[in-house]
Amino acid sequence: MRILITGAAGFLGSNLCDRLISEGHDVVGMDNFVTGSEDNISHLFGNEQFTFYKHDVSNYIYVPGKLDAVMHFASPASPNPASPFAYFNLPIQTMKAGALGTHNTLGVAKHHNARFLLASTSEIYGDPYEHPQKETYAGNVDITGPRAVYDEAKRFAEALTLAYHRQHNVDTRIVRIFNTYGPRMDLEDGRALPNLLKQALLGEQLTVYGDGGQTRSFCYVDDLVDGIVKLLYSDEHMPVNIGNPVEMTILEFAEQINKVTANKGGIKYVDARSSRDPQRRQPDITRAREILKWEPMVYLEEGVNKTIPYFKKKLGLA
Amino acid sequence: MRILITGAAGFLGSNLCDRLISEGHDVVGMDNFVTGSEDNISHLFGNEQFTFYKHDVSNYIYVPGKLDAVMHFASPASPNPASPFAYFNLPIQTMKAGALGTHNTLGVAKHHNARFLLASTSEIYGDPYEHPQKETYAGNVDITGPRAVYDEAKRFAEALTLAYHRQHNVDTRIVRIFNTYGPRMDLEDGRALPNLLKQALLGEQLTVYGDGGQTRSFCYVDDLVDGIVKLLYSDEHMPVNIGNPVEMTILEFAEQINKVTANKGGIKYVDARSSRDPQRRQPDITRAREILKWEPMVYLEEGVNKTIPYFKKKLGLA
Repeated sequence: MRILITGAAGFLGSNLCDRLISEGHDVVGMDNFVTGSEDNISHLFGNEQFTFYKHDVSNYIYVPGKLDAVMHFASPASPNPASPFAYFNLPIQTMKAGALGTHNTLGVAKHHNARFLLASTSEIYGDPYEHPQKETYAGNVDITGPRAVYDEAKRFAEALTLAYHRQHNVDTRIVRIFNTYGPRMDLEDGRALPNLLKQALLGEQLTVYGDGGQTRSFCYVDDLVDGIVKLLYSDEHMPVNIGNPVEMTILEFAEQINKVTANKGGIKYVDARSSRDPQRRQPDITRAREILKWEPMVYLEEGVNKTIPYFKKKLGLA
Repeated sequence: MRILITGAAGFLGSNLCDRLISEGHDVVGMDNFVTGSEDNISHLFGNEQFTFYKHDVSNYIYVPGKLDAVMHFASPASPNPASPFAYFNLPIQTMKAGALGTHNTLGVAKHHNARFLLASTSEIYGDPYEHPQKETYAGNVDITGPRAVYDEAKRFAEALTLAYHRQHNVDTRIVRIFNTYGPRMDLEDGRALPNLLKQALLGEQLTVYGDGGQTRSFCYVDDLVDGIVKLLYSDEHMPVNIGNPVEMTILEFAEQINKVTANKGGIKYVDARSSRDPQRRQPDITRAREILKWEPMVYLEEGVNKTIPYFKKKLGLA
């Protein structure tokens, strides 16, 4: 297949490029480098299976030649308010990538009679009342809150994708991506895993907010990409959760990080910040198991070990 | 003020044009006549306070001269699956009016340094678990359902409006409009009031689904427009519900319609259709009362009496 991937220079997009190229596909990458990084794809320049366009998906998209699939991964995605690349701090670009970007990429898929895959997110569930979250859960998103620029853009993108499927028979897929980690992730994205792993590798005390009883689920990027590729190859049109359902508390996670990295820094407890983060989010992956025969295979210790060399390089420790 | 109103040829838009012109404002109307009707504004052609552009708000908008306010009312809005003008049947146009249309009209407001008012809807609450609905309620919208093309477009539009307010200091307002009736409403919009009033005026039996125990709240259009104008004049940026909180069952309502119209046709009960309609929706108007000093003034009997001549004309009975 010849596959257009928007957001190709991002964490997930670039890992997806590698995987699809390794399976023999031709990949057309697209990114405007607002939050993506050239470092993530520079190894692909010169590869004859890879073509790249620097382009903003909010503007009209033209790709010469045929396309068999379009995968729309372009969007700011960091929830770290302190990061200039967070969607909080790029609110209108984020909404444009979700609305205009999805509209434009669906138009490309329609024009080429190509299958289409939307990268959606567990954020469409907001701060959920239902645990774990099934795909049927309508979510609890505060439209007026600062996270809405991302959450509502993705909800809109899903509805538009289904509208193109129903109205124009575009062969669409929707993946709802949960918390993912691995090489090429943004060390500054503000999530628990990069924050704690960074501190551990620097030999610092790990910061745990409140009592550390909030829970998280972490999916290793290879598992996630595997699920996405299986969804692309399937013929499932309704949304599918892809993520790791193994839930642990932040405290358990911090202890495990200290163990894996042999960090002697210990743990420091600080007041729970007036966090906008949901207290819990955990995928119900029944549909992925049944429809895609997919489930995550990489244990946290293994995944963290595979991620450490990338973190060390980024931190100047390697 | 000089005020741009998109969707000016619609039920609410045209009533709003009349009201603002009567208050001495200049109105620039815009409509593409996909669901709006020239009949609703033809009486304004020739009025020097009124200018009209036939234009699709999904495309770039240019309005010559200054603008002091922009009110974005353009969207398909009928929930009647049998109507060719329903948002179900115009899914992509509906999503474009909500996303691109809001983006374009916010751009106009920003350019002119004009205040902006978004016509949002009680539909953003979906099929609510909370009664009555406060503005803080996150709603229960099924992203994958057929109503999502409207509901998610309006949720997106609200989030984008707040993003423009926060990011670009655009002086924005958001009104969440509940069930409204009155002259110029679409007789075929599929809602309970036009369905039953039509049957009553034709001397037919009124059709009540199930046991008629579902409840509705109906706001007369003059009340609604009054609330919207008060919001425009206010400086409130967060969403405000405008609607009539008086709740009645469909059965009570049908009986009242038969009384007001002196219809002898009685009532027939039919099986509850596999309805996509929410069972209940009722505004909490505490914020409108406190911030705008607004509440509805028109009793149902009076409002229906004011609506009957329009229905008779449309039905060829007058």
